[in-house]
Amino acid sequence: MEAMTRRDLLIGAGAAAAAGLMPGASGQASQPDAAIAQAAEATMLQIPENRPRLILESVELLTRDGEYLVRLRTKNGLETVTAPNGMRMADGWPIFTRRLAPFFTGRDAGEIESLMDEAYRHQSNYKLQGLTYWVCIAAIEAACLDLIGRATARPLAELFGAKADGRWISVYAASGNRGNSPEEEVQHLRSLAAESGASALKIRLGGRMSRNADSPPDRTVRLIPLVREAFPETVLYADANSSYDVPEAERIGRMLEEHGYAFFEEPVPFDDLWGTKEVADRLEIPVAGGEQEFSMHRFRWTIENRAVDLVQPDLHYFGGFIRCGRVARMAAAAQMTCTPHMSGSGMGFVDVLHFASIHPNSGPHQEFKGLGPIPLASTTSDLRPRDGRIQCPSGPGLDVSVDPEYVKSAVPVGG
Amino acid sequence: MEAMTRRDLLIGAGAAAAAGLMPGASGQASQPDAAIAQAAEATMLQIPENRPRLILESVELLTRDGEYLVRLRTKNGLETVTAPNGMRMADGWPIFTRRLAPFFTGRDAGEIESLMDEAYRHQSNYKLQGLTYWVCIAAIEAACLDLIGRATARPLAELFGAKADGRWISVYAASGNRGNSPEEEVQHLRSLAAESGASALKIRLGGRMSRNADSPPDRTVRLIPLVREAFPETVLYADANSSYDVPEAERIGRMLEEHGYAFFEEPVPFDDLWGTKEVADRLEIPVAGGEQEFSMHRFRWTIENRAVDLVQPDLHYFGGFIRCGRVARMAAAAQMTCTPHMSGSGMGFVDVLHFASIHPNSGPHQEFKGLGPIPLASTTSDLRPRDGRIQCPSGPGLDVSVDPEYVKSAVPVGG
Repeated sequence: MEAMTRRDLLIGAGAAAAAGLMPGASGQASQPDAAIAQAAEATMLQIPENRPRLILESVELLTRDGEYLVRLRTKNGLETVTAPNGMRMADGWPIFTRRLAPFFTGRDAGEIESLMDEAYRHQSNYKLQGLTYWVCIAAIEAACLDLIGRATARPLAELFGAKADGRWISVYAASGNRGNSPEEEVQHLRSLAAESGASALKIRLGGRMSRNADSPPDRTVRLIPLVREAFPETVLYADANSSYDVPEAERIGRMLEEHGYAFFEEPVPFDDLWGTKEVADRLEIPVAGGEQEFSMHRFRWTIENRAVDLVQPDLHYFGGFIRCGRVARMAAAAQMTCTPHMSGSGMGFVDVLHFASIHPNSGPHQEFKGLGPIPLASTTSDLRPRDGRIQCPSGPGLDVSVDPEYVKSAVPVGG
Repeated sequence: MEAMTRRDLLIGAGAAAAAGLMPGASGQASQPDAAIAQAAEATMLQIPENRPRLILESVELLTRDGEYLVRLRTKNGLETVTAPNGMRMADGWPIFTRRLAPFFTGRDAGEIESLMDEAYRHQSNYKLQGLTYWVCIAAIEAACLDLIGRATARPLAELFGAKADGRWISVYAASGNRGNSPEEEVQHLRSLAAESGASALKIRLGGRMSRNADSPPDRTVRLIPLVREAFPETVLYADANSSYDVPEAERIGRMLEEHGYAFFEEPVPFDDLWGTKEVADRLEIPVAGGEQEFSMHRFRWTIENRAVDLVQPDLHYFGGFIRCGRVARMAAAAQMTCTPHMSGSGMGFVDVLHFASIHPNSGPHQEFKGLGPIPLASTTSDLRPRDGRIQCPSGPGLDVSVDPEYVKSAVPVGG
């Protein structure tokens, strides 16, 4: 297969179109900065004015077996349950129970877009800036959107002005492995591909925040060609998880280019925006990043300056559909792709389907790390991958519910 | 009095020297970027090689009346107690009890500098990036430094290669008020000045993260001249807490210049590094910032590009003496001042004294928000402000201890 390169993206050449990614603009001066700035503060929701009020009677955090659930109940008798990122919630739950539950209780879920801004300033909550805070907000936001959708009989996509057509969304299967041998990893990738049917795979490079140390030594330089050899027709992505400095990232990136990989994620420490841009400028392969980012200002700079080619806000870590939607719109204004990052936790794999159904520039494949332990159901999709695609739910709201028996067996956190 | 201006800083003119701040370099090209990069990763501690091992037997988090204490005990019978920022710890304590206490238990406190790096990578703790994580680390770091100092009979400053001479450190008194009338605020400032004897005061402007809205309307434009009139000889600082956009920050900054204020803190949203630089470039008055920052890469960019004139890492929010010391060294390499931010919580007012005793570029006045509720004692200082100065403790370690009766009455968190 022909790999898409940064140069293709920058000049909008054929290979990029073939790979389904949007072509990019050709440098900072020609970036439509005003449109990007506008998108950063855009009003995202389109809710019917005659919607019922949805006063929140209770805002609860429940847990079972290390997973977490957020349950909202309205005074007019609606109830919904969503699932946040459990790994972050395990450390951050006092933010939810002490700060956010009291703030949102008694408020109108239909005003979620402005309430999120208000919550950030309330009692200096902005000092809790970080993934943990935004994971709590994302779970509350998704639940509010579900309530709005059900109360107005509209699927999620319509609340964002898009059409919910129950389309099948392509996924890529992301391996979580490091530390094994390249040969073992190829076996693992075969099983991932077989389970999901995915025609795109993502591998992990380097040692994770490791200042160039590999895990184990020399795994990466053997893995890159071996995986290509084993999967000659597959779209391959690679994630360094902040493993390298700029020169080593360039060396590894060249190897990825040689073997036709389609993007290179988080090559250098994630908060080094400038080093990331330097890597992106040096390489042909598209550079991806944004998983650990939670600042709209920093995403704006990243997009305006093409510091990555593909932005990856995490739908949970960055605070949900509204905030990630603004990033997608900023990316669209710069003719860039925005494919959300997603961990395997909660109901994230469904969230990325919804996001892709809303934003045309969400890229050819959405991240998939398995179905997770929470039993979910939808009225319009079986939520199972088939031939590398999962059908996006298209009923009112999120149209995905947690098994009521599972919810019943979960207990309040910190209660 | 003559106010120090950004231009004075940039050209190193007399007024800056008179105000006790270091003059700055004159633009990006002439910045000693290599020295800044080196400082960002500098080894800070100078510990005698023949020090005893300080294996941590227990790492505990205790609480009483909304305050928090961290207690470390070593296998060879040493014990120390420090106090973190209580407001952040109230939401972030599971990070301490679930992640950091198990990590540090059994480790050698004498290796704190490398352990901090290791802890950040351990079990993906970096995903908890934010003030909450670093507040936990800062408390553990300070306690480890105290253990090292006491085990080697060296005051804190000596562990950083400086001399502990028990000097008296000048403080500025920072008002926490907003929402009152300018006349009420002047009365409050008079009482702050009388209590501390401080010859420098800081007021708050705008509405705090308020997109130009004042609190109450027109307070700021009346407050700025009124405070100058009431305190004609006092060094005055002003903190906007992210209240403005760039044009409004310029307007307010001009007013501060007109009335001889000495710095303008956090003019625009704190994560808008680029807007902050734009404000600093437009104004003559020195712009200060860094309280909410916890990324070394972002401080490095800020210093390399003179995005502020005065960097203010928070000794707790940024993770303690070692990390803030690297920022101070980066600032020194750029001939800039680094005055740590400090909330009123914990034993922060003592921490800033120590920091000032280590770093010659820490500025003329350290932040002081009162003594706080935790009863503290030192063998070499009464820890009380007199004529606007407090004596820095100079005995072994931090040379500051929490009243044992107070510690006894605190209970384990989450236990």
